Amino acid sequence: MKKILLTGDRPSGKLHLGHYVGSLQNRVKMQADYDSYIMIADVQALTDNFENPDIVQQSIYELAYDYLAIGIDPSIATIYIQSQIPEVAELTIYLMNLVTLSRLERNPTVKAELAQKGMTESIPVGFLCYPISQAADITAFGAEVIPVGEDQQPMIEQTNEIVRRFNRIYNTNILKECQAHIGINGRLPGIDGKNKASKSLGNAIFLSDEPAVVKEKVMSMFTDPNHLKVSDKGKVEGNVVFTYLDIFHQDKEEIADLKDGYRQGGVGDVSLKQMLCKDLDGLLAPIRERRAALSRAHIREILIDGTTRAQKKAQEMMQAVRNAMGINYFG
Amino acid sequence: MKKILLTGDRPSGKLHLGHYVGSLQNRVKMQADYDSYIMIADVQALTDNFENPDIVQQSIYELAYDYLAIGIDPSIATIYIQSQIPEVAELTIYLMNLVTLSRLERNPTVKAELAQKGMTESIPVGFLCYPISQAADITAFGAEVIPVGEDQQPMIEQTNEIVRRFNRIYNTNILKECQAHIGINGRLPGIDGKNKASKSLGNAIFLSDEPAVVKEKVMSMFTDPNHLKVSDKGKVEGNVVFTYLDIFHQDKEEIADLKDGYRQGGVGDVSLKQMLCKDLDGLLAPIRERRAALSRAHIREILIDGTTRAQKKAQEMMQAVRNAMGINYFG
Repeated sequence: MKKILLTGDRPSGKLHLGHYVGSLQNRVKMQADYDSYIMIADVQALTDNFENPDIVQQSIYELAYDYLAIGIDPSIATIYIQSQIPEVAELTIYLMNLVTLSRLERNPTVKAELAQKGMTESIPVGFLCYPISQAADITAFGAEVIPVGEDQQPMIEQTNEIVRRFNRIYNTNILKECQAHIGINGRLPGIDGKNKASKSLGNAIFLSDEPAVVKEKVMSMFTDPNHLKVSDKGKVEGNVVFTYLDIFHQDKEEIADLKDGYRQGGVGDVSLKQMLCKDLDGLLAPIRERRAALSRAHIREILIDGTTRAQKKAQEMMQAVRNAMGINYFG
Repeated sequence: MKKILLTGDRPSGKLHLGHYVGSLQNRVKMQADYDSYIMIADVQALTDNFENPDIVQQSIYELAYDYLAIGIDPSIATIYIQSQIPEVAELTIYLMNLVTLSRLERNPTVKAELAQKGMTESIPVGFLCYPISQAADITAFGAEVIPVGEDQQPMIEQTNEIVRRFNRIYNTNILKECQAHIGINGRLPGIDGKNKASKSLGNAIFLSDEPAVVKEKVMSMFTDPNHLKVSDKGKVEGNVVFTYLDIFHQDKEEIADLKDGYRQGGVGDVSLKQMLCKDLDGLLAPIRERRAALSRAHIREILIDGTTRAQKKAQEMMQAVRNAMGINYFG
């Protein structure tokens, strides 16, 4: 039997190349080797978007379009909507008994996110508790492999602490420990070269961008501000076009040569950007094609089917959890 | 249509005269005037008994026996088990987004309970969050009348804050504000006269105590330690036998006369205690009789029936909540 892999995204906007490099391409590669659960994490998105449920609601279909367009195969992978599986909420409530407030406040991922959002005492309880909610997401499906960024490693540790505590207290082994699967590729910088690519910073190339938009974004990419003429010597480090070419251009030797040429002078930004446009088009054209073949009605069916399958799995686990806790009174 | 009343108890032991005076007798009186929901709050009991689910499990039937024995009529009142209605957990998760950590930590009832239990940083998150869980218990059934002790008033205020915030954010009026219904009778002291009657202090007379046990407990009641002989002058204040007679003896004038006699000397403790025994027997005999007529199988049926009815109500509310939040994607 294949191991269960759980991954997903908060529905808070369209996916971009940063997501692709960071997680999506791995997800497509891994889908045949694992029993994959891909969660559209709307409950989690609501913890910091609870005043704007519209954004969350709209993004669900955008996310599903993106998943199918990049090649997630819904006959292999189970795409589901988190909120439609109340068993996860139920499990969360019981796991909340096993975590102290101080442990939660010590979680480095939570601390970093709070600092980033400028929240301290005004933190909504739902947001503070999302590591527990994540532990429920993972354990409800018996997931053992969790592809994450390095910054999410503490979440996996917290999940495993909860798993061990649950199993010890209720004298069982039904909850499974999981392992972080850290991707090889790091973060993709935004086209401005300042930050990582992100929707809110307006510096990302979306998977659904039309060719003309991609071209416009690539042409505006940050290179070397002192490289004014083709003949000027240029800097490769921090030059976003080269960072992207390193990732998206297949012929690595060609890039090495171009870097040498750029450093010595004689390689123009525009020609490099045109090359990158071609590379991105090679990546995005089949994605666009698959997207064009999709209908909202078809996606709806896939979401209902995936959510139904996922709920069945979560129901089995909750039944086992209730049995272990001795609260299955009418069983 | 009758207003909905919600009340209940944590299943963590048998009920005693303190419960009867504080809430149970009112519950019986009020059951015809309201659409009563009586919750066996096992999820709440697990927040501080999560390591001992056996206690919770065993106490569920004890509680149900007690309810029916005191005269709760399951054809009028809906007795249900909290954990068997996952909709409440689901609602709790969404309400958690609407409460900040600092607001929760300021809740006077939570503060008092934490101090009493000696918890501070080691507080389990589930316990900290129980006011939110209570708000879900109340709002899931549209309850508007909540019989509580005065110390629980802040919980009602917190619930109403959450209700107003939910309705404002999601532009709806589906969640209802509720009112505390503070009972007339205060706390019943334990037979030791030191603390309020409580199971853990071993100073309570249980509704299920046999006559001989009741007699033994009454005979050991704290009176006036300086009242050694019948002819001695005695103190009425802090004398537990008089406190109990004030509550349980019908003829208030007779008690007033006895108090005068006791103060002046000439009234014996034993005769007073025998009088109290008779009063308590008058109260407990019909309760015993009804209890004897109950079977576990019958109670099981009542619990299943009540829980099914309650779940239907909670499902309707959760459907409305999902609609208001815009997360009823497949509806």
